[in-house]
Amino acid sequence: MKKVNIGLLGLGNIGTGTYQTLEMNYEHIKDVTGVDFEITRILERDVDRKRPITVRPEQFTQTPDDIFNDPDIDIVIELVGGIEPATSFMLKALNAGKHVVTANKAAIAANYDELMDTAKANKVMLRFEASVGGGIPILTALTGSLLANEYEEILGILNGTTNYILTKMDHEDMAYEDALKEAQQKGFAEADPTADVEGHDVANKLSILMNLVFKKKVHPDDIQTTGISAITKDDIEQAKKDGCVIKLVASAYHKDGELGCFIQPTLLNKEHPLATVNNEFNAIFVKGNAVDDLMFYGKGAGPLPTGSAVMGDVIEIGRAISKGVAYDL
Amino acid sequence: MKKVNIGLLGLGNIGTGTYQTLEMNYEHIKDVTGVDFEITRILERDVDRKRPITVRPEQFTQTPDDIFNDPDIDIVIELVGGIEPATSFMLKALNAGKHVVTANKAAIAANYDELMDTAKANKVMLRFEASVGGGIPILTALTGSLLANEYEEILGILNGTTNYILTKMDHEDMAYEDALKEAQQKGFAEADPTADVEGHDVANKLSILMNLVFKKKVHPDDIQTTGISAITKDDIEQAKKDGCVIKLVASAYHKDGELGCFIQPTLLNKEHPLATVNNEFNAIFVKGNAVDDLMFYGKGAGPLPTGSAVMGDVIEIGRAISKGVAYDL
Repeated sequence: MKKVNIGLLGLGNIGTGTYQTLEMNYEHIKDVTGVDFEITRILERDVDRKRPITVRPEQFTQTPDDIFNDPDIDIVIELVGGIEPATSFMLKALNAGKHVVTANKAAIAANYDELMDTAKANKVMLRFEASVGGGIPILTALTGSLLANEYEEILGILNGTTNYILTKMDHEDMAYEDALKEAQQKGFAEADPTADVEGHDVANKLSILMNLVFKKKVHPDDIQTTGISAITKDDIEQAKKDGCVIKLVASAYHKDGELGCFIQPTLLNKEHPLATVNNEFNAIFVKGNAVDDLMFYGKGAGPLPTGSAVMGDVIEIGRAISKGVAYDL
Repeated sequence: MKKVNIGLLGLGNIGTGTYQTLEMNYEHIKDVTGVDFEITRILERDVDRKRPITVRPEQFTQTPDDIFNDPDIDIVIELVGGIEPATSFMLKALNAGKHVVTANKAAIAANYDELMDTAKANKVMLRFEASVGGGIPILTALTGSLLANEYEEILGILNGTTNYILTKMDHEDMAYEDALKEAQQKGFAEADPTADVEGHDVANKLSILMNLVFKKKVHPDDIQTTGISAITKDDIEQAKKDGCVIKLVASAYHKDGELGCFIQPTLLNKEHPLATVNNEFNAIFVKGNAVDDLMFYGKGAGPLPTGSAVMGDVIEIGRAISKGVAYDL
């Protein structure tokens, strides 16, 4: 049986969820893929933190090069987060001939071309399913089974924090500040919620979608973005009266020769498939010229859903390695 | 550029939709795949029917062997429908070393093992994304990007006809007979609606899902199946009073060591993601042990949505051919 070794950069929440996904489904994954995956090295300073997984002390390292220079490692999973040093780590791994899997939307959106070109030059794979929509396998579908379509429109609820807040405001008549506070208490929002509530997180994801779906480079900073921090109880009330809900929607369109994208709080008629996507859930609505309306719904964040997407990419690469095609893509 | 030639068996509604999908997106598909797909031969008696596509007279044949024996044909698309002669056609094509793509749920469900074994023995690919959920790329996701999960539960609204009838009964207080009549007028139900309304169509699809997801062989005839023909206005009314809707749900589960499946009209709480799947739409709800709740929603039938799924499979095979791995899977 083909053995595939993995180096993991970062054992925070997502790193732990990824490790746990492989640990709990190890036999199943080996069974269906015919590949034996093992996370052999982990770059992480905090070796003592209590985690719901079994890690041997010798798996840990504090030296990134221990992973990049390890000839036995086939795949590097980057879960450090942020643009740097994550981007440099990925470039090093790709240049060392390792396949790379990441959940890092900020680094992919900021350095898309450099990362893709470096993967291509080294004939290795770079995959980032988890960077958009968490556990929802949307990127693989858009660039795989749905390839026979030209897309007219993509609409996404791509941020669980803002969707949770808007749902609470709508269902429980809460004020924005109170809903934000509750989201923070439940761990759905960070202490500094700016990146989420002002739409910057979504801008990274929409930039990635524009690259993949419309082959168009739009830097996240150049996407016209309005967050939800100015939404009031009155806005929600008025929307209800009109038979609508307010959602933070990322839009990308290609209609009548015009191509564009923007992010803003959007009135959705209650009959729209995205209107019933509530709480921390994400969804992506696509209109293809053959498949017509399509929607994918699921958990856009969380250690295990994100771990599912990361491991999906790892499995895809492992299968390619075992068929001998991974270095020629 | 790699050229991939296709033989098409059947140019009815789905065959025409498949041809049309390739025709309208030809340049786009060539662009993103680097493969030049052409439907070179078509098995079809009715050469004179008016269709929204351009077919040259010399593409038609009435002799199946013209396709199976054509050394230039790489992929055979089977869209004849029904168990026979479709199964024999597929076996002939596989034994002739052709890859096969089909939308034929009845033939795949009835002869799953024989078809899969024949594909394996001939080292060719057999794909059938369009057989479950029409345009929704559910099979590829379940056997690809979601492979890191063990599944606890799959629930599907897998038949557009019955969902259309139930939606009309719920939204417009129609009686079953009237809703069925309207579905027939709109082309969502056939003159003899038995296969749809009694759940036999869904049984084929659930049998395929059981094979793929739980590796369990259940013949469609052995699935406990209750259709919707006995549902009355009173049933719908009572469900409404209880805050529910009635949907024809196909269920497969693997919980506490027990594995099973059944099809029946099911009360769904209005908050359930499947409850808002209306009219002719289909949806599949999956619960994986890592990804948690996930739902795919889209058009479960129709020439172009089904054509999208068929062409998705064709593209997957074409890419494998161009990488030189298609004959070693």
